[in-house]
Formats: sequence, C-alpha cells, structure tokens
Amino acid sequence: MYRRAIGIDLGGTQLRVALVDDTGTVLKRAATRTDVPGGPRAVMAQFKALVAEITEHEGLDRISGIGVCAPGPLDSTTGTFIHVPTLPGWEDFPLRDELAEALGTRVVVEGDAIAACYGEWHFGAGKGLRHLLYITVSTGIGGGVISDGRLLHGRRGMTSHVGHFRMAMNGPRCSCGAIGCFEAFAAGTALDRRARQAALDHPESLLARMVTPTAGDVVEAARQGDTVASCLVDEEAGYLGEGLTSLIHLYSPERVIIGGGVSNGFDLMETRIHAAIRNTAMPSFRDVPVVKAGLGDNAGLVGAAALLLFDERGE
Amino acid sequence: MYRRAIGIDLGGTQLRVALVDDTGTVLKRAATRTDVPGGPRAVMAQFKALVAEITEHEGLDRISGIGVCAPGPLDSTTGTFIHVPTLPGWEDFPLRDELAEALGTRVVVEGDAIAACYGEWHFGAGKGLRHLLYITVSTGIGGGVISDGRLLHGRRGMTSHVGHFRMAMNGPRCSCGAIGCFEAFAAGTALDRRARQAALDHPESLLARMVTPTAGDVVEAARQGDTVASCLVDEEAGYLGEGLTSLIHLYSPERVIIGGGVSNGFDLMETRIHAAIRNTAMPSFRDVPVVKAGLGDNAGLVGAAALLLFDERGE
Repeated sequence: MYRRAIGIDLGGTQLRVALVDDTGTVLKRAATRTDVPGGPRAVMAQFKALVAEITEHEGLDRISGIGVCAPGPLDSTTGTFIHVPTLPGWEDFPLRDELAEALGTRVVVEGDAIAACYGEWHFGAGKGLRHLLYITVSTGIGGGVISDGRLLHGRRGMTSHVGHFRMAMNGPRCSCGAIGCFEAFAAGTALDRRARQAALDHPESLLARMVTPTAGDVVEAARQGDTVASCLVDEEAGYLGEGLTSLIHLYSPERVIIGGGVSNGFDLMETRIHAAIRNTAMPSFRDVPVVKAGLGDNAGLVGAAALLLFDERGE
Repeated sequence: MYRRAIGIDLGGTQLRVALVDDTGTVLKRAATRTDVPGGPRAVMAQFKALVAEITEHEGLDRISGIGVCAPGPLDSTTGTFIHVPTLPGWEDFPLRDELAEALGTRVVVEGDAIAACYGEWHFGAGKGLRHLLYITVSTGIGGGVISDGRLLHGRRGMTSHVGHFRMAMNGPRCSCGAIGCFEAFAAGTALDRRARQAALDHPESLLARMVTPTAGDVVEAARQGDTVASCLVDEEAGYLGEGLTSLIHLYSPERVIIGGGVSNGFDLMETRIHAAIRNTAMPSFRDVPVVKAGLGDNAGLVGAAALLLFDERGE
C-alpha cells in the first residue's frame, strides 16, 4: 500500500479528480463538467483523461488505487450503480470492475455521503472518534456512520440512508416517493420551497426581491437581519434538531457532523439544533454535540481516496 | 475460553439464570422473582444463589463467564446502569464489576434487546447473516443490529434505540417523554390502549367482554374471527411495517427479526408488514424479509451467554 491514492467525485454536474496523500492533503486536482448525456462510456473516457492529467509524470504504479464516490443508491459491495436519478443510463453499470480493468489498478466505489463520512473521520471534524454520524444536507439528505471504530456498510453497502426515515404521517412528499421523510422536511430543496412561499407571503422581506430565492439566499438574508429569513432558518434548525435526535437514538454517536450546502448556515442554526436535542432526546443522549463539517466540498473526494489509503475493506 | 457460559436475564419481574453451551442449548436453568424492593444488594444475593444452584457440581472455573442482560439504558462499555424505570435504585450501579468480584469470573453486561439480537444471530432466526436488524415489540420497542458481521454498540453501548425515532409530529406521548416515537405507536402498550378504546366503541366485539383487553387478547380475538380485533391487528401491522421501512433504510439489514410479546401475532401481521415495506421503501430495499424470532423468551438469556462464548468484545 502506497501513501497516495486518487479520489474521484462523480456528480451529476461536476466530475472531480484529486491525488490525495495519507494526511488528507490534495496534491493535485482536475475537474470537468460531467458528460451526462454521453452516459457511462463518455464518462469513463473523462475519468481516464483526468487521471492521466494528474498522474502524468508518475503513472499509477505507486498509487494505492482509485476511490470513486457517487450519488446512490449504489451497491458498494460490487461497485455497481443501482439507480441514479442525476445520472441516467448508469443503472447496473459495473463501474468498479470497468475502471479497474481500464486503468489497471484497484478501485473502490462508495456512496458520496459514506465516503464523506470516512473523510471527515480521518481528516476532518471527526478525527479520533469511535462513533460518529455524518449527515450532508443539500438537495437531499444523505449520511454515513462510524460505529465502534468502523465504517458501516450494511447489505449491498446501502446503510445510513438517514434522510429516509419517516418523521411525520402527513407532510411533504419526498424525492423517494414516500410522505414525510426527514429529507422532505429538512433538505435544502425543502428550505428552497419554504423560501419561495415566504417571498410570496412577505413582500417586506429581502427574499421577495429575488425571483426564486434558495436556501443559500435565506441564510444570506438572515445574516443581513431579515426577520422572515431568520424565522425560516430557525424552522430549518428545528427540523434538523428533531431529525438528529432520532438519529442519535438510533446510532449513539459521540458527535454529529453536518456537511452539505445548508451547513453554510450552521452558525445561525447551532443553538436551536442543540436546544431541540436537549429538549427531546432521552437524557443519556442529550449531550451529543453537533458540529460543522471540516472538509467542505472536498469531503467525498478526499474520503474516497482515504478508502484506499487506509484499506477500509481490508481486501 | 470454555464452551459453556452463564446467561442472566434481569427483568423487573423475573430473574432468570441459565447455563448455555456454544450450540445455544440451555443445559440448566433457574429462576426467581426479582427482589425489586431490595435493590441491587438483594438482587446480587439472588444472582449468587441462582448461579450456585446451576453450577453446584462444577464451580465457575470451566465456564467462560457470565453475561447479564437487563433493560436499559445501561452503559455496556462499563457494565453500569444509567436509568432503569422498572428497577429503581439501580442508577449508576456498577453491576459488571461488582458481580465479577463477587463471583470471581468474567462478566459482560448488555442491554436486553442487544443481547437478544446477538442470540438470534448465533442460534436463532439470523444465523449466518452479515446484516441483521432485531426488534422486540412488547411493553416498549427495543432492538439490536448486526452490521458487516459485527454487533453494534455505539457510544456507551447505547446504539439501536429503535423505538425512539420520531414517526409523527403529533400523536401519542412516548414512555421517553417525546411525542410520536415509533414505540408510542407500535409497542404492545399502544395496542393495549387501542384495544381498551375499541372495547368501549364496539360492544359487539369479543374485546368488550373483557375488563381490560390487552395486545395478547387482541391477537386471540382476531384468531377467533373478531372483526374489530382483526382491524386492530391490521393497524398494528401497518405501524410496524412503516417503522420497519424507516429502519431498513437506516441500517440496510438482510433480514428483520421481530421478537417480543406482540410477535405472537406475527402470522396475522406478516402480509401487511411486507405490504407496507413494498409500498413505501425505496426500490432497492423492498425485498428485505421480516421474520419471527426463533428463540422466543430465551433470546436475551442465551444471547447474553453467547457474548462470552464468542468473545464478542474480543477482550
């Protein structure tokens, strides 16, 4: 095992590749717009080109391998996509084996939130812990769990779909089709929706000056003292706190780490998130702290490389 | 390590002790009524007497140790009780260390549902699996999880409080004080409550002939063709199916095992539980089967002994 690996973050918009060392430092990086219409074949060519770009003087022979993270659900035990709404045509594509053969190196494929959890554990806000819950709150809500000093995988590697426990019998419909999931209440898209409604209801708000205010706009407007936006931020924090209370009971982490776009407003939400946990968690769980992610957008990229650097699956 | 261990199931009503071998067979057993008013000191004396009874001709020197399971929350990493509603006076009692010193053998203390999960995994309905969710539905709802071939513990050993994720924004108050927990909808006590109400609302039902119909009575009446009772069973199955759907997303087990008193009606609920999962789970989770526990009341007792037989914590 070498002390460097390649991380790839395959998103529906961007494809990012980085050479990462075992301190979590990104030594080189390259990125391009994901060729979504081209499907797996076109993106495989993009992988090869970007990997060649960041390794041109060295080849792959002194690199531990390639870790790819991507939106799920994907079967990380076989490295195969199951269904990816943002990447049509990738269903059943055996990414791990195809890439390993094409590039002649070891490849691991992991869900993006699970890879990010692993990255935060090794290099970010979860260093040194034995029990950790990571959640990413952006378009959807995903997550990963370290329990007893190990990354959880579960059947087909599909564990920790933390956005999809039912939080209400009625309520908004989730991207998964069910009613009332945590994600349907607390994801960035839910906050986007509430922001658009608030803009219609409150012409005095800064949000009403925007065509389609987003979660990011809400956080910015709240920072500028907009009362309507502050209420939306508080409401979001309340949903996050309630959802995290449930998840803390289910996984008993030492710490919760929040990443994803919505975590940009974490400083505004922190007090209320902790208040929700103190008010509704069972007594012995009330002191579990929630912190902001340490690696930002790089968590998945660096975490995917770390899967190789620390030989996570012990293969 | 020897091939026999002692399991103790410390309940608020009964104290049961068994000598168990590494095939899960109970070689000897003894039981008594738990001396709850006497507190930890009196119960320690009961432990000693029952352990002496089942080991009289052999002593403890060829036994791997003693596994105790008890209602939680307890800190299994230190073997100390945190708070036990059914056992007043046990808060902070260092059961593991006290018992190890008193009997001169290795002792492990584990939450009863987690011990039962371990028992079902080694000897019951979960044999040979790598990913398993066990839930017990009786007075409350508890659970345990095997993920990637290992029993989950979490911080302070308090993982898998599966009855306490919020399933509704409004609804019945849970034993934990919160509103709308899975346990508040689907535990045996919730079914008891609905049975009492149904008895008042439906004088034609068999349930109306009973003073205080219970979950067990509902199952029996449903077996006798009582329509009101059958509706209650269906409703219970619906809540279980919905709760399990969330838990399947969170842990990705290969199989779910249901134990506890309410599982006596499992044959009447099975179809509807599976229908709920098929209707609301994300596609790649819909085929996860739910089965009835294999060890019945002995799961905790045998599982607690198994913690020693298979050196679960590897100490």
